[in-house]
Parts: sequence; structure tokens; C-alpha cells
Amino acid sequence: MIAGTEASAAAAARFKAVRDATLALCEPLEVEDHVIQSMPDASPPKWHLAHTTWFFETFILSEFVHGYEPVDPSYRYLFNSYYMGIGEQHPRPQRGLLSRPTLREIRSYRAVVDLRMQELLARATEEREEIERRTLLGIHHEQQHQELLLMDIKHFFSVNPLHPVYKPGAPARARSASHLEWLEVPGGLREFGHDGDGFAYDNESPRHAVHLAPFELASRAVTNGEYLAFVQEGGYKSPEFWLADGWAHVVQHGWQAPLYWKKMEGVWHEFTLQGLRQVQPEEPVVHVSFYEADAYARWRSARLPTEFEWEAAARDAAVAGNFVDSAAMHPRPADGSGLQQMFGDVWELTRSDYAPYPGYRPAPSALGEYNGKFMCGQYVQRGGSCVTPQEHVRVTYRNYFYPFQRWNFQGMRLARDVG
Amino acid sequence: MIAGTEASAAAAARFKAVRDATLALCEPLEVEDHVIQSMPDASPPKWHLAHTTWFFETFILSEFVHGYEPVDPSYRYLFNSYYMGIGEQHPRPQRGLLSRPTLREIRSYRAVVDLRMQELLARATEEREEIERRTLLGIHHEQQHQELLLMDIKHFFSVNPLHPVYKPGAPARARSASHLEWLEVPGGLREFGHDGDGFAYDNESPRHAVHLAPFELASRAVTNGEYLAFVQEGGYKSPEFWLADGWAHVVQHGWQAPLYWKKMEGVWHEFTLQGLRQVQPEEPVVHVSFYEADAYARWRSARLPTEFEWEAAARDAAVAGNFVDSAAMHPRPADGSGLQQMFGDVWELTRSDYAPYPGYRPAPSALGEYNGKFMCGQYVQRGGSCVTPQEHVRVTYRNYFYPFQRWNFQGMRLARDVG
Amino acid sequence: MIAGTEASAAAAARFKAVRDATLALCEPLEVEDHVIQSMPDASPPKWHLAHTTWFFETFILSEFVHGYEPVDPSYRYLFNSYYMGIGEQHPRPQRGLLSRPTLREIRSYRAVVDLRMQELLARATEEREEIERRTLLGIHHEQQHQELLLMDIKHFFSVNPLHPVYKPGAPARARSASHLEWLEVPGGLREFGHDGDGFAYDNESPRHAVHLAPFELASRAVTNGEYLAFVQEGGYKSPEFWLADGWAHVVQHGWQAPLYWKKMEGVWHEFTLQGLRQVQPEEPVVHVSFYEADAYARWRSARLPTEFEWEAAARDAAVAGNFVDSAAMHPRPADGSGLQQMFGDVWELTRSDYAPYPGYRPAPSALGEYNGKFMCGQYVQRGGSCVTPQEHVRVTYRNYFYPFQRWNFQGMRLARDVG
Amino acid sequence: MIAGTEASAAAAARFKAVRDATLALCEPLEVEDHVIQSMPDASPPKWHLAHTTWFFETFILSEFVHGYEPVDPSYRYLFNSYYMGIGEQHPRPQRGLLSRPTLREIRSYRAVVDLRMQELLARATEEREEIERRTLLGIHHEQQHQELLLMDIKHFFSVNPLHPVYKPGAPARARSASHLEWLEVPGGLREFGHDGDGFAYDNESPRHAVHLAPFELASRAVTNGEYLAFVQEGGYKSPEFWLADGWAHVVQHGWQAPLYWKKMEGVWHEFTLQGLRQVQPEEPVVHVSFYEADAYARWRSARLPTEFEWEAAARDAAVAGNFVDSAAMHPRPADGSGLQQMFGDVWELTRSDYAPYPGYRPAPSALGEYNGKFMCGQYVQRGGSCVTPQEHVRVTYRNYFYPFQRWNFQGMRLARDVG
Repeated sequence: MIAGTEASAAAAARFKAVRDATLALCEPLEVEDHVIQSMPDASPPKWHLAHTTWFFETFILSEFVHGYEPVDPSYRYLFNSYYMGIGEQHPRPQRGLLSRPTLREIRSYRAVVDLRMQELLARATEEREEIERRTLLGIHHEQQHQELLLMDIKHFFSVNPLHPVYKPGAPARARSASHLEWLEVPGGLREFGHDGDGFAYDNESPRHAVHLAPFELASRAVTNGEYLAFVQEGGYKSPEFWLADGWAHVVQHGWQAPLYWKKMEGVWHEFTLQGLRQVQPEEPVVHVSFYEADAYARWRSARLPTEFEWEAAARDAAVAGNFVDSAAMHPRPADGSGLQQMFGDVWELTRSDYAPYPGYRPAPSALGEYNGKFMCGQYVQRGGSCVTPQEHVRVTYRNYFYPFQRWNFQGMRLARDVG
Repeated sequence: MIAGTEASAAAAARFKAVRDATLALCEPLEVEDHVIQSMPDASPPKWHLAHTTWFFETFILSEFVHGYEPVDPSYRYLFNSYYMGIGEQHPRPQRGLLSRPTLREIRSYRAVVDLRMQELLARATEEREEIERRTLLGIHHEQQHQELLLMDIKHFFSVNPLHPVYKPGAPARARSASHLEWLEVPGGLREFGHDGDGFAYDNESPRHAVHLAPFELASRAVTNGEYLAFVQEGGYKSPEFWLADGWAHVVQHGWQAPLYWKKMEGVWHEFTLQGLRQVQPEEPVVHVSFYEADAYARWRSARLPTEFEWEAAARDAAVAGNFVDSAAMHPRPADGSGLQQMFGDVWELTRSDYAPYPGYRPAPSALGEYNGKFMCGQYVQRGGSCVTPQEHVRVTYRNYFYPFQRWNFQGMRLARDVG
Repeated sequence: MIAGTEASAAAAARFKAVRDATLALCEPLEVEDHVIQSMPDASPPKWHLAHTTWFFETFILSEFVHGYEPVDPSYRYLFNSYYMGIGEQHPRPQRGLLSRPTLREIRSYRAVVDLRMQELLARATEEREEIERRTLLGIHHEQQHQELLLMDIKHFFSVNPLHPVYKPGAPARARSASHLEWLEVPGGLREFGHDGDGFAYDNESPRHAVHLAPFELASRAVTNGEYLAFVQEGGYKSPEFWLADGWAHVVQHGWQAPLYWKKMEGVWHEFTLQGLRQVQPEEPVVHVSFYEADAYARWRSARLPTEFEWEAAARDAAVAGNFVDSAAMHPRPADGSGLQQMFGDVWELTRSDYAPYPGYRPAPSALGEYNGKFMCGQYVQRGGSCVTPQEHVRVTYRNYFYPFQRWNFQGMRLARDVG
Repeated sequence: MIAGTEASAAAAARFKAVRDATLALCEPLEVEDHVIQSMPDASPPKWHLAHTTWFFETFILSEFVHGYEPVDPSYRYLFNSYYMGIGEQHPRPQRGLLSRPTLREIRSYRAVVDLRMQELLARATEEREEIERRTLLGIHHEQQHQELLLMDIKHFFSVNPLHPVYKPGAPARARSASHLEWLEVPGGLREFGHDGDGFAYDNESPRHAVHLAPFELASRAVTNGEYLAFVQEGGYKSPEFWLADGWAHVVQHGWQAPLYWKKMEGVWHEFTLQGLRQVQPEEPVVHVSFYEADAYARWRSARLPTEFEWEAAARDAAVAGNFVDSAAMHPRPADGSGLQQMFGDVWELTRSDYAPYPGYRPAPSALGEYNGKFMCGQYVQRGGSCVTPQEHVRVTYRNYFYPFQRWNFQGMRLARDVG
């Protein structure tokens, strides 16, 4: 273990870096952009800026700074997301009705909390260990919101008929995607979950044994071109490929293609953070729901992997790839041979429901509401995407969404049974 | 008739005054405020600024300026409210999802259209008469949106837990309201509607005969204090006072008091453009629906007047009172004797459904969609309110809302049968 | 005035006749048919049988028979429609969830109440006048439910893919409809409403003066053939003909033709109480909403009459025509010249909202909930239909429905302004 | 393998027994009861009678009887539940709008199909094996609908204010429930799923290895008395015990206790197939959702078992207990020591989502729509209930419902981690 002061300095530096990164993501936005909430699942950028700050103020400053006076008492209510242990929350679907506090006021809120946090981190206190533990949690929490911020910006730009561009400039040139190989993975009894080394969320523990049958995994993610064949050959009109819930959803919502796809004069276009452009066949398909991924896989006589199959295959891969750090802001074609794209580009949908690992215990206090209470009706995704901060992800990292959700940067990799 | 040039100069001056007045109403707003749409009935301030401009661009510049190039072709779609004759519209409930165009861009849009309008009005053209007729219509249209702007601002501020203040400063001191008198109005056959002198909307015509029975009319509007008695004596829990539709609405929406009333620690407060304050008993009650007004009247063994009864009584009153021009932004207590408050303070709910006058003909072209197509299921209000521009109102002016709507500054004056 | 005993015998005979007529309408039904409620507006036949009985038990037997024991105390709640003064009601949309009491039990309920009513009517009591007044009201109430019964049967048969037939047999042969004439009706100040002679509902009073402008009225109702032209020439795709509310409804519900019209292999069919058959061009169009009638009239450069225009024109016509008494159960083509079909065939939609007449007072007690509390948002219809009992209708009779409702046998007659 | 004729005779006998049993369950019903659908999840008894018949007609008679003429061609559409491979279906929520075909007609449909089935089963044909395989599937299908029938009857009786009784007579006398013991189950790698001996649904295969950690399992189901403590100590008001989805559901639907519990004058009552009676503390709690079971377990510092934990513990238990065969129609108190009630009484909720076993393949043809397409968002239940036919259940049997559903006879048994 490194010495206290050094550790604190490192924590403070990391804290600053992450807080600055959030503001940097808002650079391309106008003041007006910060206000918009385009659906109940999403939040206005202004809210993300405030809520991540609220996290540090509520769980650290208010508890560890003697006599701490909140910047504004109303923020405890306004910027609480879902922590029942903290108290009531402003209703989620109404986050976009708040013009006040203004962006200026929220930036000022950030500045004050950052200052007090730096003071606290610089101070030697008995509770330093717990403070740093929570600061680290707050940093990971903020990284998640950096990804949400980009997801939410993309969504509200997409519903604007002016098709605003978040990041000007041509997308990475589309090369042809690498050939799809089926890689064999042997079965057997193995250990999965966090081994205790470094930071992890509580939902990655405890490490435990799972027995796998041997299976085959695709070498790369499904591409737009492959998915387009499904669309064009009537995939969205053929109930036989769909889960019953999925088909009901397709009919009710009139789905005909992935979210953000739009047919214009006979040509499929896709709204991206670089604006509206033609669908590039070589790029991984993105913004498909679990329902769509499952139907596509069945159409291909394949299936989605379980989260354990994914983790078994990814175990030896480096956590590297097209993350937000590349600034591409869009998945890129696979380019190579063997197992590719396990990390970055698109979150990979699995067929595993988001369930507690055997022996799972949520963290104590309101912080324990972070993960466990969402373990129902959602499906696990693995590996991170082109809008995930690289250092946020691990091989054991479990992301999760409902089977009908699509605004996350999620795609899929196929698996199939052996024999 | 005044000479052409003079008339044009007058039209130009009036145009400028009204356009400036709209911007002045936005002075107290932050950039963020301009984006909010807090319910489907309301629109963001930014949208009002653009739509009123769109009206001049679409119905005047595009038609009378040879080779006119729209400021932005997408605005024709984005800022069309409901004119089917012009083409499709951006869906009304999604006006609050548009961060772009920015406020800066919309102000620039206003500036350019204003300039081109001034140029056009200064030019002698054969179509001057039609141009001035439409300009006048556009001016009245913009005045309506000035009122809507204040209604909508009040609404979105009201749903913000921070209770923002639009206009700081204490409200007018509440004096005691004048005594309620019942004034007799004789019956008989009379003429109603616009007599052709000066501007009027098509829905005020043709002038026609209606037979009235004699009736009594209250000398002033119902006050908060009077309405509070209804609230406190169980008015919202007693189906016998309510229309069937009204009672169903009360139960479904949990209504317990007028919109913007809020009980805090046992005391009724009211959200106003000056912020949240205690309900002042002397002030006219405002933001009650037709349902509530009708129930209250029944509880008082009275009724609402018809629009013709109102017009008969108001015929000799001056169009003067507490309009937006007073900058009070809230209704004031009645103060005097005899017939008071017929104009200004609160729109007065009538029991008349909004129907075409016998022989009514809508204006030709898309401009004919202004009034006639709303003649179903709505009820007429008369006399203007504290947020109406004074010069916008006439004794024959017909405003109209659905019986469940409340965000308009509307109140009521009682009537009763004679004998 | 006729002597007491004679009057009572007459009342008893009329009571019996109407009660029998209700059961006769249920003759063609199976037990299973009595249970169905196919939409919240409709009620199961079983419920109509019970509710009309409840009316006599609640408002007469329970009040005028000393020590009366209700047949079943739970019926007071189960079969109350909307009389708040009587107490809570079983929720209207859940009437179709009640398999019990069985049809057998409800028929027995009817038998017992009928017996007790006959005993009461035969007895000389001090309250005879009030008893007979209420019996008469109960009789008219039951006649209304006879019509509702047929409306509701037609509706639930229509949603059954088996297209059950209520009344077998070919419909009246379709002759060609008579030529449409425009009949002039002079204007002036006239009296409208019930003159006090014979039974009338409270909503037909008081008689009062209304000033009419001269107008023209069509000699007969609009036919299927005429309406079909509107359908085929794009009437349901052209917002310019529609009220704003009407157009929104058309779009939301995908209306393309009157209720019960169904295009099969390119040919318009119509579901009737005789089953599914081709639309007959000569018959009056029926089951159009106020929205559709208004749009059709505008397309024809005409309009709907007001209820006073209708009453002025109908004043001298005999209350005769195709009522339920003819057993045709469907409107018939007009056949003659001059003013035809003012009574029977189809309820005639007017542009008058259902409002209280000047000086209107509802009846005292819970019976006063019969009419007044529905005076909001509905439109008046006049003249009765092919499923109305002939003796139920008068020239002053006001029926009323919401502008979007269609399951009533309602059609229209055009009017237009003069000059 | 037994000889063909004998086997056929056995199949025919079993077919007859199951078909008769369905009719026997309808004995206590009135004609009217057969029509009711009290919620979209439920179906009218008449529909169950027809649909189970449709299954034999569609999958056996139509395919294996040369020149078979369907009893009524419209039934193919009307009584298809969800088999897309067969064609369109009458919309599920509208099953309760069909008064026709009548009960008499449907009983006749059953009689004809039964006759043709018996003829077919008696005939020696080349396809005998497949016919018997499908007959067996149809028998199991019909047994499932016998359970659904009782669930649906209970539900529509429960919403009738008259509280009809399905099965008169006192419930089994409530003895005290046996003491709750925690039984240890060792961990390790074991095989789960159907071993190929006897009938099983496709979702029970393939048999495969799962690694379990050691755990403890409760000796009996949770009782009403135990659950009541949770209710009374504020369980339904404490978000901290609930999954996020569960809490949202509790708030939205105002849940305060299990389905069918009703507080009357301070005392909790429960609607049962024997009518309304006081909650018996010794009986197993029934009609709780997955959300409620999960919250209750958390409150008790325990959890639900996984389906594999349940199967591991049940492996050596006899498939015996309080099934529909006992005619109790309600769960009974546990009575004994050691592992009790694994079968019968209440379906036992597990924390396992309903997912395909590794290597799962649905059956070919439309019959393959039986199970696989529902593998999303539902949770597995094990062991059968007091309304399940005993011979329908196996140790590997997987039942499944959504986490918010409650009308199934489902309860829970607690588990907890070791160490």
C-alpha cells in the first residue's frame, strides 16, 4: 500500500481529471442544450453536472466535513436520483422542466464542491480511508454519467429535425470489416467475478464457480451490413424470430430498424454524434435492443452468449479498444484477426439476466442502493463502448439495461452451441 | 380614411411597438427559461418568439416580397402552430425538445424579419391594403402570444420547486374588496357582435340579434375569500355541485383548489409571477376552470352569465382596467361601486360554448384557420386579464378554452335569474 | 283531469306495457349475450334489465311503500348508474365483469318489483300523484334504456367476428331515396321548449324566446350514397373540412368511414341488427359522429342546423315515422316530397351544445341528476330514431351525445344560410 | 414399450379422463360465468373449453385425419391463443366480448372433437406414434388450462361485490403450522433438468451441470401469519426492502397486501374459492408477486432460492401433496417435520429468471411456440399448487410468470446463504 499523502495526492489528481473531463464533454454544447430531457430515461446535461456533484456533497462532504453547509439545501432533493435512504427525489420525468438553477449556477456549484473536496482530500483525517474509498466510488459514478451524458445528448439531438452535430468532422473512414471467424471456447468449471484486486462494484462479487458447456464465439461484433440483411429480408415482419415480448414491442412501437436508423429516399441513414449520415456496412451495428439482438441471432441460427461465456472468452484480452478516449464517438469496423473488439466500440448484449451472484451482499448505507435494487428484468452487457471511459471498464464489469432499451451504445456478438 | 403613407407609418410604428413589447416581456428570463415547455398546452418562450415571427414571414413576406428567401427553410415546419394549409407541423408536445435553434438564432430571425417587414411597409405597393390588413392581424396575433408567453412562464416556474420569481417586488397591497352588489340588466332583443368599426377577429361577426331574459349580474368578480369558503366547506368533495364531467375530472386529477394554490402548513398559498405568497382574500380568484366556476356558482345558488349577457352589461363600460400595461401581472381587488372589473384583472368565464355566430364565415386561405376550427367543446371568456395588452381587447372580443383548462388568467363573475 | 282510479289503471297498464316491451327486446338474445359490455359507454343487457327495475324500486317502492324490504340490498349499489344522491355506484366500466346476479335472478327481480309496483299503483294513497308522476318518469326512463339496449346489442355483436344477427330477415328493400329539396324557413323571434302540456323532461323547459335568422333546411336526411362520395373523395384525409378536435380524433383513431362500415374486397359493407350487408346508397347515413357530420356539411358548403332551427321546422310535422315500433331496426330511405323524416329513422345532429335553457331548474332530489349535470361538452340531437319508441319522442325532445360518439343511431340533415 | 393397441387404449382413456375433468371443473358455474374475462391476462371459461379443443383439432385432427372438415372454420382464428405459425388470433383482451359461440355450441364442439379423437386413437395408422405424442402434449396442455380455469374463475369472482362462492363448504380447519426449520443442502456440481424418462416440456431440457454453493432451505412455505407481520410492520411502506421495479409497482398500484386480501373493519380477510373469509395465519401465504416475495425475504434477512437450489432439495421428495385432486382448492398448513410442501399447496417462487437451458432447442413447427418465446422477463416457479393436477407436475417442471403477476396460486419458501 502506498503512503497516505501520496495516495491522497493521487486521489486528488484523479478526482480533478475526472471532474474536468465531464466539463470537457459539455464544451460543444450551447446553454440551451443543457436543459433538454428528451425522454424519461434520459436527463438534461445540466442535471448530470449537478447530480455528480451532489454525489460528492451528499456522501462525502456532508458526512466528513464538520459543520458542512450545503451549497443550496434544495439541491439535496433536486439532484438526488434514486437514493431512498437520502430522502425524496424530484420526479425523474420532470428533470427537463427545470430551467433553474441555471447552468451558471450549477457550474458554480461544481466549483465550490470541487474546492471543498480538494481541501478534504488534502487533509489528514482519521476517516481518510473511507473518504478515499467513497471518492473513488464517486469517480466511477461520474464516469458512468459521462457516458450517460453522451447517450442523452445523442438522443435529444436525434429528435431535433435540424439534426445538430455534436462533434463536427468526418467519421473514421470505413474500411471493410474483418472476416467473421467462430472461435471455440472449451467448457468446464471456472471462476467468475471480481478477484478483489483494484476497484469493482459490489455487483461483480463474490467470485464464484460456474460450469460452462463448450461453445463457439464470433471473432467480432455483428456489423451494420449483416444486420441490414435481416432488416431487408423482413426480420421486423416475421414473428417467428422474436421473443413474445419483443414482437409485442415491435408491433406497438412500429420498430423497423435500430434506433437512429432512418430511411431517406430509399437509403438507410443513421444519426450519429457527427450528425446524420449513411449507414456504413462495415461498422458494428449499435443501438439495438436485447429483443432485436435476440431475434437477429435466431435468424442467424445462433444466439447471444451468456455473461459468463463472454467473461471466459475475454479473460486474456487486454482492456483496450475504441473508448471515449479515442474521441471517435462512434463504433469502428473490426480490423484484424482472432478475437477482436471485446472491449470498446459497443456494449455487448448477453442473454444473462442481471441477477445477484451467489452470496451477493449490497454495500451498507444509501450507497448500497447503487446496484442491487435493479436486479430484476434487466439483461447484462459487457465490455464497454466508444463512449465509455477506458479506465472505467474491467473484464468483470456488468452493465445492464431493460430488454426494450436502445439508447445505450449497445450491439452484439454471436455465440453458438457446439455439437 | 387616412392617406397611404401616413397609414403605413402608423402601421410600421405599431408593428415595431408590439414586436418590442414581446422582447421586453422576455427581459427577466434567463437563456435556460426560453427552452422549457411544461405541458403540451404550453410552448417555450423561444417558440413564441419564433412563431410570431414565422407568422409575418409566412403570411406577408413570403407572399408579397418578390423572390423572398426564407431565413431558414426548416422554420416553416418548426414554427407552424396549426395551419394545415401551410403544411405539416412539428408536433406540439415536442416543442420543448428543441434546444436548437438557439435563442441567439431566434432573436436574429426576429431582427431580419422585422427589417424586411419595415422595408415592405415603407414601400408603396399595389397590395398595400392587404399587407396592412395582414400586418394588423399579425400584430393582434402577437399580442395573443404575449399573453400566452406570460401564462406559459407562470406555469413552468410553478412546477419548479425553487419557485422562481418573474417580476420581483411586493404585489399591490391588498385593500379590502368592494361590496358585492347585484345589478339588474333588462331583457329584450338586442344586437351582439362586431359592428364593423375597427379591427375584430372573424369570430366576432356577423352582428346579429339575440333575445335575452332579464337577469342580475354581480358588480365585481368572485374573490379569493369567497372562493376559499367553497373550498373549506367541502366544495371539492361534494359531487352534487358539479357537472358530471367536472366531477370526474376532480376525482381523476385530485383537484382540491384552483391551479397554483398550495396548502403549506395549513395556510393556502398561491404561486404568482411575483413568486409564492399567501392567498389574498380581497383579490379576484384566478386560474379556476369552467368546471370549478360552474360548481362554485351552483353552490352560491347562482350561475355564470352567457357571453351575450356579459356583452349586454359591458356595452357602456370603458375598456379600461388592470391590463398587462399596468405591470401588476396579477389581478387586483375591486375598488369602487357599481359595475367594476368588466375589463382586465381576470378573463370572465361564461356558460356559452364557443360557437359560430349565425351566418359566420371564416376568412379565406390558411388565415381562415385562425378561429373557426376551434368551435367545438370550448367555452367563451370575455373582458381580458391582467396579462392581456389593453389595446388587444374589445367588448365583442371572444376568448375560449376547454372546460378543464386553468392556466389562463381566468376567473368569474356571477349572474342569476330574475323572478 | 281524469279520475284517480281510472288514471291509476291507465298508469298501471302503461307501466306493464313498457316493462313487457323491454323483455320482448331481449327475446332474440342468448343467456350469454346478456353479460357483455363491449365498451365503457355501453352496458350489458342484464344490467339494463336490472337498472330500470332499480329505478322503480329506489325512487318509488323504497319511498312510498311502508316498511319496504329491498329485493337484495346489494342491488342499490350494483345497479345505480350515476345518482350520487343515492350513494356510491359500481364502476361503470366494470359492469361487464358481473356474471352474478344471473339473468334468472334479474328476471325474478323484475317480476317482484313489477308485482309490488302494480300493488302500489292499485292502492289509493295520499301520495298517488307523486307516485304516478315518478312512475311516468320511470316509464320514460325505461324507454330510453330500450333504445340503449338495442344500441349496446348492436355494438357488441359488431365486435364479434361471427357477426351475429339480432333480427333475421332481409332489410326493407331499398328504393331510391327522394330528391333533396331545400326548404326555406323564415326567421324571427319565436318560442321554444315545452309548453307544459303532457310529459317532458326538465331540460325542455322553460319555454323561452329565441331569435332566428331565416335559413334553408334539407327536405330529408343525408343518405349513404351522398356520404360515400365524401369518403371516396378523400374526406377523411383532408384536414381542411374538419374541426381541430375532430381531425385529431380521426388521426388518433384511424377513422375512415362511419362506425359499422367495413370495406370488404373493395366494397363497403355495414353491420346492422340484421347482420352484415352491403351499404345501401338510398338509406340515411347513420352512426356518424358530430365531428363527421360537421365535416361532411362543410364539404357540401352547408352546415348542421341549430336545435332551434330544427324545432322551428318540425313544429307542424306529425310525430310519426320509422320508430322501433316498425320493427325495421334500421333507417329507411326517404320516400315522398316536402319535409320528410323529421321524426324516426335517425337522430338528427344539431350544432347546438347541450346547454340549460334560460331559467332552467333541475328537479329536486336525486331525480334532479337526470339531465342537468350532463350539460357540458355534448351536442343536441332531435327527432328520434328507428330504435326509439314512438311515444317517447316530442318535438321539444332533446337527446345529447359527445361529439366523438357514434354508437347512437344518429345521422344528419343539412341546413344553410340564406343570402 | 407396450404394444400399440394397448398403448392406444391407454392414451384414449387418459384423453377421456382429462377432457372430462375439465368439464367437471365447470360444474359449479352458471352459464353467465362462462363469459367473463376480468383482466387481459385471464380468459373466460368458455374460451378455455374451446381453446383446449382447438389444440386437438388443429395439431392432430387437421393434420392426421384425411379430409378433415373443421367444426367451424372461424374457430381456427377465434380460439388460437398465440401460435403465430397457425395464423392470426382474436386479440387476447377481447376474449370477454364474445357471447357467441354460446356455451352450448362450445360443448358441442368439444363433443365432436372428442369423438373424432377417439376414432383416430382407435385406428391403426402409420403416424400413431406422432399422434400419441401430440395427444400427450394436448393432455398436458389441457391440464395447464384446468389450472388457469380455476385461477381465472377465482379472479372474476373476486371482483364481483357479491363474492360468489365456487365451492361451498368450510375450508380445511386451520391447525397450527409446523415449526420452521432451516435445512442444510450441500453445494457442488450437479445435473439438472429432465433425464428423458417420461413426458416433459422442451424447456426442461437438456439436462446439464450447474455448480451450487451450499445453502439452507426453509422446511416449509412462508405462512400468512409470518407475512402479516411484514404487512403490519410497514413492509409496503418501506422502499428499502424492495427492488426498484417492485417499489414503483407498489406505489403505482397502491398495493398494501397480497392479491385477494381485503381489510374489513380492521380485520384482514381473503377471497378464496370457498368465498370471503378471515386470513388464516397457519396457511401458506398465496397470491404474492415475485416483487413481494423478494421484499419479504429481504425483510427476513433471507432470499428466494434459485430454481436449481429448489430442484436439488426436491430431488428425493415424492411428488405428493395438496393438489387439485384433493379438492381443497386452497393451500393447507404444513403439518410435519423435515422438508414439507415441496409439491402442491403453492407454486414456489424462485429468483431464477426463465431462461433457456444451455443447448435448449424448441420443438419444431408451431408447437415449438409453446415455451421458448416466453423466455424473457419472467421468473421460474416450481412444485405445483393446490389447483394443479397432481400428475401434471415433475421435479423438473418449470412454471413462469412476470414479477408483477399474482393471480397464480403462488407463494414462497425462503433460502439463505451459508457462512
